[in-house]
Amino acid sequence: MRCAVCKKKAEVYLPHHNLALCREDFIRFFHKRIKKAVDDFKMFSEEDKLLVAVSGGKDSLSLWDSLLKMGYNADGLFIHLGIGDFSKRAFEIVKEFSENRKAELIIINIKDEFGGKTLPELVETTKGVPCKVCGKIKRYFFDRIALKENYDVLLTGHNLDDEAAFLLGNIFNWNIEYLAKQSPALPEEDGFKKKAKPLIYLTEREIAIYSFFNNIKYNELSCPFSKKAKSHLYKESLHQMELSLKGLRIKFYKGFLRNRKLFEKAEKNYTLKPCKICGYPTSSEICGVCKIKIKAEVSEGEK
Amino acid sequence: MRCAVCKKKAEVYLPHHNLALCREDFIRFFHKRIKKAVDDFKMFSEEDKLLVAVSGGKDSLSLWDSLLKMGYNADGLFIHLGIGDFSKRAFEIVKEFSENRKAELIIINIKDEFGGKTLPELVETTKGVPCKVCGKIKRYFFDRIALKENYDVLLTGHNLDDEAAFLLGNIFNWNIEYLAKQSPALPEEDGFKKKAKPLIYLTEREIAIYSFFNNIKYNELSCPFSKKAKSHLYKESLHQMELSLKGLRIKFYKGFLRNRKLFEKAEKNYTLKPCKICGYPTSSEICGVCKIKIKAEVSEGEK
Repeated sequence: MRCAVCKKKAEVYLPHHNLALCREDFIRFFHKRIKKAVDDFKMFSEEDKLLVAVSGGKDSLSLWDSLLKMGYNADGLFIHLGIGDFSKRAFEIVKEFSENRKAELIIINIKDEFGGKTLPELVETTKGVPCKVCGKIKRYFFDRIALKENYDVLLTGHNLDDEAAFLLGNIFNWNIEYLAKQSPALPEEDGFKKKAKPLIYLTEREIAIYSFFNNIKYNELSCPFSKKAKSHLYKESLHQMELSLKGLRIKFYKGFLRNRKLFEKAEKNYTLKPCKICGYPTSSEICGVCKIKIKAEVSEGEK
Repeated sequence: MRCAVCKKKAEVYLPHHNLALCREDFIRFFHKRIKKAVDDFKMFSEEDKLLVAVSGGKDSLSLWDSLLKMGYNADGLFIHLGIGDFSKRAFEIVKEFSENRKAELIIINIKDEFGGKTLPELVETTKGVPCKVCGKIKRYFFDRIALKENYDVLLTGHNLDDEAAFLLGNIFNWNIEYLAKQSPALPEEDGFKKKAKPLIYLTEREIAIYSFFNNIKYNELSCPFSKKAKSHLYKESLHQMELSLKGLRIKFYKGFLRNRKLFEKAEKNYTLKPCKICGYPTSSEICGVCKIKIKAEVSEGEK
């Protein structure tokens, strides 16, 4: 098979684009897909100061790598969750990545923020659902650091598979409010910087190929909590269907973006105000993360 | 395992209701589920003259059987499509079913209506997609006969699996107009009688058990055209997900019914008028079935 661009030997075939490419043209294709998402949703410009939330996985590292190569001003933010070997390995990888590229990396250690407790310990003491507690804490520090360090846009590595699976889950459960909010880019608001997902037009497989072609080392360990996540099931179902219906996910997701306004009237019927303890925008008196802190300390006291 | 109602030995376990039942109580449960759908969507009353569209499959025959046992005034309508052994077998089964129950059966033979042509021949000469041509023709005769013979409501055997798969397909493709129209009951309109789907709260598996418990013989042959239908793929995916997420389909479908109004503003921006040839309501000058007739004759003349 020949590269559709330069006619050299192709190294990759992309079924839903019906496109064969050599290594160099695949990398160019990958960066173009990012640029397209950035332009389609006016995510950021070349002058903006970007903060990429990096987990040590291939998605966020491929995003950071791409942005640096594309000439953007992009720093990284890593939240050390303290989930045993998984977090240790993630930290090593992200640190090495940033050092090799002489890129700025901000590190937040959960233990420093929650009186010495790791994420598994917080889950245990608050009796929370791991992925919910983790998501809440990560979102909190993403927002806080972007604001405090005055970045223009906070970026996450959500890809097409993630967004399509999230969409399917929200539709199965008719979470209209989530559907109204699910967007490739969210504008700046009181207490929040602008947020964007530049990888929405790229699949997990395309990102895996990109990281392989660019020798991006990523955390090969999976989070021990993630096995139970329903999102895996939705993702797997979409993968299975995609085998017979090429392009299903991208059509499904793009169709949603075109029709998202249908859900918007259900959006946000509450107002956010600063948390009484930390100032983070919240719909109640005290924000979710401060509640975790309180719960964790109470449980501690009870022992 | 014991029957949840009478404590006798259970013969069936229904995972998404977490319910074990004996044969007699399962049959009562089955009829109650039908009654619940009938009441929830005001489908029909005991005084109404009902017409059940029967294909020879287990869904429509279980529906007809149930309605007769529940004391409703229900006749059958069978469209003989002329699809080789599949249609022959379907016809034998439906005829025997109606004779055994001394129930009224109306038979429409495609060949009598389309100048001697069977469905496969119509598909061939019109170069149509089989399931689309078939669906158009069946809907046409369902509507025409219900109107001509003055039935109050036309009933079809669509079950929960069908409706959930149809819903998923319409969502994947963002067919907003179809989503706006997908309903367990459609009111009477100019040129159409009322239509309803009393099996929406029952799964394929529950219907298979009902037909087994009641010795309902059904067509064991599959339509040779049906293999290519995308709806099978959606149905299979939903089945797979249901294995891990019990009750997924019923929650998904009921959630849709609660939120259907979101799609309604996109509904019907065209008006129907009688077909110039046959009088059937259509959005163009000539209805889809008359167009098939014209096309089939043109192709015939060209030979």
